[in-house]
Amino acid sequence: MTQRPPLPIACLTINADRLIERLDELATIGQLETGGVCRIAFSETDVQARQWVWQRMVDAGMTVRVDAAGNLIGRYAGTQEELPALATGSHIDTVPVAGKFDGCLGVLAGLEVVQTLHDNQLRLRHPIEVIVFTDEERSVIGSKAMAGELLDDPTLYVRLDGTSIESCLEKIGGSWAEIATAKRFQLTDAGEKRSDIAAFVELHVEQGGVLEAAEVEIGVVTGVVGQYRFAVTILGQANHAGTTPMDARQDALLAAAQLVVAVNQIATTTPGDQVATVGYLTVSPNATNTIAGQVDLRIDLRDLSQVHLDGLVAQIRSACEQIAQSTGTEITIQPTLQIRPTLAAPQIMAVIENVAHQLQLPTLELPSRAGHDAQEMGRITDMGMIFVPSRSGISHSADEYTADQQCVQGTMVLLKTLIQLDDCYD
Amino acid sequence: MTQRPPLPIACLTINADRLIERLDELATIGQLETGGVCRIAFSETDVQARQWVWQRMVDAGMTVRVDAAGNLIGRYAGTQEELPALATGSHIDTVPVAGKFDGCLGVLAGLEVVQTLHDNQLRLRHPIEVIVFTDEERSVIGSKAMAGELLDDPTLYVRLDGTSIESCLEKIGGSWAEIATAKRFQLTDAGEKRSDIAAFVELHVEQGGVLEAAEVEIGVVTGVVGQYRFAVTILGQANHAGTTPMDARQDALLAAAQLVVAVNQIATTTPGDQVATVGYLTVSPNATNTIAGQVDLRIDLRDLSQVHLDGLVAQIRSACEQIAQSTGTEITIQPTLQIRPTLAAPQIMAVIENVAHQLQLPTLELPSRAGHDAQEMGRITDMGMIFVPSRSGISHSADEYTADQQCVQGTMVLLKTLIQLDDCYD
Repeated sequence: MTQRPPLPIACLTINADRLIERLDELATIGQLETGGVCRIAFSETDVQARQWVWQRMVDAGMTVRVDAAGNLIGRYAGTQEELPALATGSHIDTVPVAGKFDGCLGVLAGLEVVQTLHDNQLRLRHPIEVIVFTDEERSVIGSKAMAGELLDDPTLYVRLDGTSIESCLEKIGGSWAEIATAKRFQLTDAGEKRSDIAAFVELHVEQGGVLEAAEVEIGVVTGVVGQYRFAVTILGQANHAGTTPMDARQDALLAAAQLVVAVNQIATTTPGDQVATVGYLTVSPNATNTIAGQVDLRIDLRDLSQVHLDGLVAQIRSACEQIAQSTGTEITIQPTLQIRPTLAAPQIMAVIENVAHQLQLPTLELPSRAGHDAQEMGRITDMGMIFVPSRSGISHSADEYTADQQCVQGTMVLLKTLIQLDDCYD
Repeated sequence: MTQRPPLPIACLTINADRLIERLDELATIGQLETGGVCRIAFSETDVQARQWVWQRMVDAGMTVRVDAAGNLIGRYAGTQEELPALATGSHIDTVPVAGKFDGCLGVLAGLEVVQTLHDNQLRLRHPIEVIVFTDEERSVIGSKAMAGELLDDPTLYVRLDGTSIESCLEKIGGSWAEIATAKRFQLTDAGEKRSDIAAFVELHVEQGGVLEAAEVEIGVVTGVVGQYRFAVTILGQANHAGTTPMDARQDALLAAAQLVVAVNQIATTTPGDQVATVGYLTVSPNATNTIAGQVDLRIDLRDLSQVHLDGLVAQIRSACEQIAQSTGTEITIQPTLQIRPTLAAPQIMAVIENVAHQLQLPTLELPSRAGHDAQEMGRITDMGMIFVPSRSGISHSADEYTADQQCVQGTMVLLKTLIQLDDCYD
């Protein structure tokens, strides 16, 4: 065999067949007989899939390490190794019944970009890191560790089956005791975070139906919405449904129903794109002939604007007070999750948009309403996300689907984005 | 001992101490260590309590039998045995954690009335029956069997623990195969029900707070409200709480909340004393980050007027249609219980009122919003109910309480009511 001369970098294209084959191959690890994939973080199948990716990172000329948070990090050296890295990646853990795209596309696309450079004996100035983040689907512990967003108490990260996070991390080569070493930033004297990652770009399936409905191939993500969750407890007075007159009731379920209606009204009548959901609600004692004494429910709020989120919370708190008073119930609201929104770096958005147009792919700017590792990475470095369409917006399901061509297009946009960013950053 | 001459019947008084002692003694059968009584129908404790009552019926000069529905029937002969009986009674089965009054007071008061007659060597013209009805707390099978209101399919009466009704009835001397023989009426050629019971009067604790609030000792029940129950299923579309825009949702919990609010509004804004309750509601998949795909709830409606109940149902059905349309959900309503209201016989109400006034006890007319055996008996014969106050309206609880004096007063009213009714009926 004669050795080909290197291609000019602007003419590079990825190997579409390899990308699609690898998506299929990765999906065989944890494949369910009933369709779909189950590869819960820290499970045997997750460990097996991580080994599979590790080998492919090595094949692509990367050095590979696992940090204390279990993040699997492949690094492809740059011509100027002293520069901060350009990073990409996503996750390969899944929900209990998943499709083959969520997370995996981003990881395999990053791998494909580096393999393409490697095949063509090319390097960027910046080192490139392809990161497989640990447990995106539940604790988001991998990217949170990099962003310094973890809480100190390991019991907060206990698994649903009771397994400790310490033993889980050990299983994949991480270490809770050393987890602070996974941080990818230092605080400057001015209190700013300075990362050894110059920019992070994540390719992901949309997990929603916006791109499909707009018939657009590439989504340029404007940011990842913040997500606030509240646990609401409504205490009324359980009583006989037959003998308690209507005007003598303290009906916790009536109060809860008024709150569900109010949350929806607040979300639909306030200008903006926020979403608000009550998806969890339990009644006690939950008997047909007993007025409800207690209702527990959860409110989930998401928006790209922190100010806007705070405004929604204020409106909901005010509705609770009013409902408590009019129904004679006691309503307490406890925040259980407060993930701050993260905006994409305008520079990266511009590059993605520019690259897509060069490839003659129509684009649409949209926020991500689902959480991603990029949300945490955006707290310490410039962040951008590329979305490709999800058929019917279906996600976290065996029916998740993105066409081969769309996966390939997204990966091409990722390749060219990283190449352009190599010139944008020092 | 010399034998006392018989008292004139108008001067009879019951033995208050005996009544109160027996209330306490019956409550030891199934007494819970944590307080309260557990004597579920057909349980060992129920069987034991029935034997205890049986013996006291015999002691009071009654002949005792158990009908095919397991009803324990003590009969105190009249001077004119060919006359239809004057009947009283209630039940001694309980909810899982009960007090000592619900049902038991009515049975022991009936026993006390007969024992008092027997002690004084007196008989009424009519035979008197004291009836311990089978399983009032759940299936109401005893009084329903007498009223011919049972359904043919025995599987409809399977117990919560899976035990068949056939084996339950056998345990207490009844027989499902013969249950039609428990009917206490015949159809006349004109299609009317003619019973061998001339009138049925039941003394019961109010199980509500109306008498206490009005500071009245004796409630003259105007009727037992009808009770309609509906199982409502709302089908929406489960979807991602983050990525599904507000205007693209089919949120089953939002629809359910609107329905709960609507049911309450209908009940509180329609003139009348009806009560309407949603006390049971479950959400599926019931996850904070998933829009509800399905909600199942139950509606409980009670009112004394059949026409009024039907009007409420129509309003609720119309609300369901409107909510289904505006939320893009599918709502189905399935009737699960339709107990028709029963009015008390005005003649019996007048006698109770008259007797109470003779005893200088203030009275109040009120409907019973809880179900009672009298409701079924009222379908085949003249029915009346005497209520005594329940402290704080508490019922179906170890905290149920009615003062000794109030139990005695109620029993005195029952005695004198039966004596007066003896003159009212042929």
